[in-house]
Amino acid sequence: MLQPRAITYTEKGAPASVLRVKTLPTLAAPTTGQIRVKFLLSPANPADMNVVEGVYPARAPSVEVDGTAHSLCGTEGVGRVEAVGEGVRSLRPSDWVVMGRSQLGTWRSSALLDAASVTKLPASPALTPVHAATLAINPPTALRMLRDFTRLSRSSWVVQTGATSGVGRAVIQIARAMGVHTVNLVRERRTQQQTDAVKEELKALGATHVLTNEEVVRDSKRVRSLIANWTQSDLPLFLNCVGGQETTEVAKTLSEGAHLVTYGAMSKKPLCIPPGLLIFKDIKSVGFWMSKWYAKSSAEERSAIAGEIIQLIESGSLTEPPHQIVSIGGHQTDQQATQTLRDALAAQANGGKKILFEMEDS
Amino acid sequence: MLQPRAITYTEKGAPASVLRVKTLPTLAAPTTGQIRVKFLLSPANPADMNVVEGVYPARAPSVEVDGTAHSLCGTEGVGRVEAVGEGVRSLRPSDWVVMGRSQLGTWRSSALLDAASVTKLPASPALTPVHAATLAINPPTALRMLRDFTRLSRSSWVVQTGATSGVGRAVIQIARAMGVHTVNLVRERRTQQQTDAVKEELKALGATHVLTNEEVVRDSKRVRSLIANWTQSDLPLFLNCVGGQETTEVAKTLSEGAHLVTYGAMSKKPLCIPPGLLIFKDIKSVGFWMSKWYAKSSAEERSAIAGEIIQLIESGSLTEPPHQIVSIGGHQTDQQATQTLRDALAAQANGGKKILFEMEDS
Repeated sequence: MLQPRAITYTEKGAPASVLRVKTLPTLAAPTTGQIRVKFLLSPANPADMNVVEGVYPARAPSVEVDGTAHSLCGTEGVGRVEAVGEGVRSLRPSDWVVMGRSQLGTWRSSALLDAASVTKLPASPALTPVHAATLAINPPTALRMLRDFTRLSRSSWVVQTGATSGVGRAVIQIARAMGVHTVNLVRERRTQQQTDAVKEELKALGATHVLTNEEVVRDSKRVRSLIANWTQSDLPLFLNCVGGQETTEVAKTLSEGAHLVTYGAMSKKPLCIPPGLLIFKDIKSVGFWMSKWYAKSSAEERSAIAGEIIQLIESGSLTEPPHQIVSIGGHQTDQQATQTLRDALAAQANGGKKILFEMEDS
Repeated sequence: MLQPRAITYTEKGAPASVLRVKTLPTLAAPTTGQIRVKFLLSPANPADMNVVEGVYPARAPSVEVDGTAHSLCGTEGVGRVEAVGEGVRSLRPSDWVVMGRSQLGTWRSSALLDAASVTKLPASPALTPVHAATLAINPPTALRMLRDFTRLSRSSWVVQTGATSGVGRAVIQIARAMGVHTVNLVRERRTQQQTDAVKEELKALGATHVLTNEEVVRDSKRVRSLIANWTQSDLPLFLNCVGGQETTEVAKTLSEGAHLVTYGAMSKKPLCIPPGLLIFKDIKSVGFWMSKWYAKSSAEERSAIAGEIIQLIESGSLTEPPHQIVSIGGHQTDQQATQTLRDALAAQANGGKKILFEMEDS
């Protein structure tokens, strides 16, 4: 019998130091209401790293191996159903599923899960494993934020920080599909050529304008007047995952009653807003957390949003995120696999593409 | 014919330097839809000073005297109707009115106003001129903020900064009348005895607990645990008119989904909030501006809120704010009156009671 393997940690810390690949006990047959899933691809999102570091308000599940509790990582991923337990009618072997709850431990080769905790994907030839593995967090975050706070019209503008992130790219593309224009902020790269390349890449995705954080801070008055000219005071939504000085400057360009929605804090700084924007301009500074949305949503709502994202993929509106697949083969020992994992994490720390784990049972 | 006098300025700046008392041209008889009003008392609110300083987004009206445009001050006040023009049916001489719009220039002895721009007060023996002069801004600001953002139950808690301000005192009293508990932050005074006196004064008004900003910042962990113990995680509303470090610390004690409502910025600092509070705790940082509420409200809504405040006064729930009356007599020359005004403003700059102007025609 094959044994599942997982990326685990026994104490919190820097992911490249504390994460390892560990062979887990053989899985039992699924009991009532359970399914056995083979994970096809599981992305490493920034929040996963924050959980390992111990700076994210979520608790990872754990599995005991030889008397030691191993915490399981990963919230997102696509799995293929291999076997179903009694009473499971909504799923059959070979169905593809994504996770309907956070922290199910998706960085595994295979697992037993409650059928109620996953969402079945409709079969679609347009849906690659990469799309499927990455459709449950970033694109729905973008979609909900574009829809839940304010009513955008086709001429409206949205501004965002961290535009190269997974959510940022989804915002650009979904906004374009809605006919909504975007002003996108990115970090300045090491060379002007690299920065220009990033700008062009986002414009190719549908970004209307791209600015760097550094441009905004360096020349805030000019940039604010630029944005005012572009948007003509129809800038009711600001999606923010950075929160540095550029966020404060750009907030000043929002139109009256606008929402500043924070869903990340890459700058690790507090979000500072001039109080006059709140009082006189009625700016609303709020937050969004996809995990909370999932925790509150019904199975039907989760299915519906997955269906919407798949439609965007089928219509060509949403492309695969830039990614690299890290394969952990069944032939590797845990030690070899751990080395593969740590090399990949170390390489990504210098700013790489999104990592997707592809793990085999050992 | 008597001539009205007003407190005016011809250029923006420090109130104690630029404000003067100026005799204005004799008033004509009220025309259609107009009333002539004799102001009984007109308070000097912090926002009025900000208008004179040029740091408030509101434009004062002006009157030309001898070829020079004099800006008129004052947004709040109680007036007695002296005469009504044609077509005015809602008001009669001897009625008391408060202002239904901002920036009508209430620091005057008498004025011609549109009948539609004022709200008639019901006759009530409990209603002193001081109550009437101060009921249109501070108590309604407190009432709306306690009511419009979240549903408070009788066991709920509200926390506020700037608790000795006019709004702060109204919050304490109206919350008490609603059965809602308050945690109140005040500035540390020069001596411990003075600080203790302020705490006792607010407790006598109905404050459940009073802390100083300095205590909160100095010992934030202990204070947060104190507040958590008091409120038992039922702290859904934070009313803030300061916005310093103490505001950031106290925001961490709010319950999930709470509203942090900013209506002032006495610290003149940006409002800084840890992004995790927005994302994971769903704290909503918003603003409130009573002027905007008045600009959007109907005559019925303005009447209704004045009626509610008067009921609170009649039931003994809302006391007069601490105040001093500055009288500018008809026998004084403009120069003498200006000296009286400047002396009062200079004395208040060291932290005095709310000034109410009582002005006679000259």
